[in-house]
Amino acid sequence: MTESLSLLKELIRRESVTPNDAGCQNLLAKRLTPLGFCDERMNFSDTQNVWLRRGQNPPLFVFLGHTDVVPPGPLTAWDSPPFEPTLREGKLYGRGTADMKGGIAAFITAVERFIAKHPDHKGSIAIMLTSDEEGIATHGVVKMVEILQQRQEKIDWCLVGEPSSDQKIGDVIRVGRRGSLCAKLTVFGIQGHVAYPDLAENPIHSFAPALKELTEETWDHGNEFFPPTRLQVSNINGGTGAENIIPGQLEIQFNLRFCTELDEAIIKTRTQAILDKYDFKYDLQWRLSGNPFLTSQGELIDATHTAIKSICGFETLDDTGGGTSDGRFIAPTGAQVIELGPVNASIHKINEHIDLQDLETLSQIYQQILLNLLA
Amino acid sequence: MTESLSLLKELIRRESVTPNDAGCQNLLAKRLTPLGFCDERMNFSDTQNVWLRRGQNPPLFVFLGHTDVVPPGPLTAWDSPPFEPTLREGKLYGRGTADMKGGIAAFITAVERFIAKHPDHKGSIAIMLTSDEEGIATHGVVKMVEILQQRQEKIDWCLVGEPSSDQKIGDVIRVGRRGSLCAKLTVFGIQGHVAYPDLAENPIHSFAPALKELTEETWDHGNEFFPPTRLQVSNINGGTGAENIIPGQLEIQFNLRFCTELDEAIIKTRTQAILDKYDFKYDLQWRLSGNPFLTSQGELIDATHTAIKSICGFETLDDTGGGTSDGRFIAPTGAQVIELGPVNASIHKINEHIDLQDLETLSQIYQQILLNLLA
Repeated sequence: MTESLSLLKELIRRESVTPNDAGCQNLLAKRLTPLGFCDERMNFSDTQNVWLRRGQNPPLFVFLGHTDVVPPGPLTAWDSPPFEPTLREGKLYGRGTADMKGGIAAFITAVERFIAKHPDHKGSIAIMLTSDEEGIATHGVVKMVEILQQRQEKIDWCLVGEPSSDQKIGDVIRVGRRGSLCAKLTVFGIQGHVAYPDLAENPIHSFAPALKELTEETWDHGNEFFPPTRLQVSNINGGTGAENIIPGQLEIQFNLRFCTELDEAIIKTRTQAILDKYDFKYDLQWRLSGNPFLTSQGELIDATHTAIKSICGFETLDDTGGGTSDGRFIAPTGAQVIELGPVNASIHKINEHIDLQDLETLSQIYQQILLNLLA
Repeated sequence: MTESLSLLKELIRRESVTPNDAGCQNLLAKRLTPLGFCDERMNFSDTQNVWLRRGQNPPLFVFLGHTDVVPPGPLTAWDSPPFEPTLREGKLYGRGTADMKGGIAAFITAVERFIAKHPDHKGSIAIMLTSDEEGIATHGVVKMVEILQQRQEKIDWCLVGEPSSDQKIGDVIRVGRRGSLCAKLTVFGIQGHVAYPDLAENPIHSFAPALKELTEETWDHGNEFFPPTRLQVSNINGGTGAENIIPGQLEIQFNLRFCTELDEAIIKTRTQAILDKYDFKYDLQWRLSGNPFLTSQGELIDATHTAIKSICGFETLDDTGGGTSDGRFIAPTGAQVIELGPVNASIHKINEHIDLQDLETLSQIYQQILLNLLA
């Protein structure tokens, strides 16, 4: 059994459902401190964070990851228990194998091999881990970045081990992410009996034309690096349950994944302009989950392209699709940020898994990137 | 204290939250059997029904009512306990005072006084009571009508003691009701992540233009007797609660109050035609709560108009607005049906009440109607 697989199995056995770390970070810190890494805990509230750094000089290369996983869902739906790492037909099954304990195991062992061969590497290497990426993400990387910035500890290159690969390992890397803006909208009406609609004001009826317009709006056309901005209504709830009562209010949640053609202020203005065309009272609360960011060029991308080409034999694809990650908190510091990790087909699903060959290849790519940048 | 008030207080003390009768029907049967009324129970499932009839000859005049009441809601919101009849400033407070134990007390005492003066009246008088008018209404009047029809016991005139009055007692009588048709619509989509909308199909977005069209549709323009048909969406629910998930389906409930310009089949056809314009899969379940009915002329209306004019001194207004009542089950038998009862401003609300003078006046009107038709 390889080192990466052995480590990954140990991580899977720890039931670190967000925001729990369940001892994962201790395990990793114990492996790295003998190699000269500092072990700095930056815990906040219910969230475990660790900063492991080797070396004091720039440039600083960071592997970013999260030890928490999403809940397993119904246990009976799994073919093997989600927290018992199980090998079947060349794959390891378990919650977190792909998102993202597989990436962690791969980069930890890559670091170990790299340091064994290059104990006097250039610059510094750090491992940055949190336990709330899958949760609300308020006490994890965002707080660690605050501390690093206060003491002017600058990250030059950040590689996030999130599952970026599409069909095969290394075929896609993420060089940026769309922004994410969440809205909670309450439309107010007047409750009443369906038999007396003139004495009531049905917020579902008032909102209907605005809903149509919001969902049909062309926000922009995207650009060279990003797909077009999209709005999705995730929740709509109105009604008392009774079939003869006109509800007093309607609750809507929607989210915009937006590209660099727009910003938060423009989206808010345009959304409110749509709502204000119609005759209803509303309350609208916004929460910015992350601004869009982009690492369109630089040493990190070059080193990654070269590493994938040399290990896998093909050109990788730069992409900005998909969901947010903790990379959104690193990018504003000026660091180059990319995401490279396992195939993402099974993440957050029943029977999440990683291909064993993929795990080894990924670790080799990580090691080659370190070699390209710091040897 | 008058007989009507005394009886009403006894009825209010019985906590007959639908479908419970809590002994109301026993109380009333015991009062009427000594006067020559048969006492026939027609209970079904959890519903108490009683048929009290005096006389065998036509024409048959029926007072229709329900002994069940809607739940009181939060007790602390009431100024006096809802099941303790409480007099304040010329009004009696309690759940059911207006809807419709007030009407029952008024017609029972009216019948008692009428029979005392006219023991050999023409035709027959019956009292028809159920305990599920406020509930699903499947085991009450609809079942009793089946029994009566099987034995060819024909109702000629039916006066429903539901609260029809608007500003003052007797100002409005209902001579018909709109139909009521309920729909449960499920719109199917494909669940997914908001970051990958092309891999999902958002049923909220698919349904938005159909929702707009359904709520803006002009179904008809009403007619001489009825207001226009109206559709109201009472419930809409879609979403997992999570802000980053596109839901897999959307549930909608809506209701049409329809006039005699349309019928059930036309409404179904037109609704489906609207839905079928758009590209989504759906399931649509209908439930007919009642067809529209109308008693536009006849002896019952004439007797009621005359009685109100003589007791109150003004002309009453014939109306077809408002919600459904058990009258919808009587009308299809060919009977003349009207509704006349207390002021409806406080029904189903906290601090439901009836004006004491209204209670007496209502009982006088009922007695006068009997006089006009059967003396």
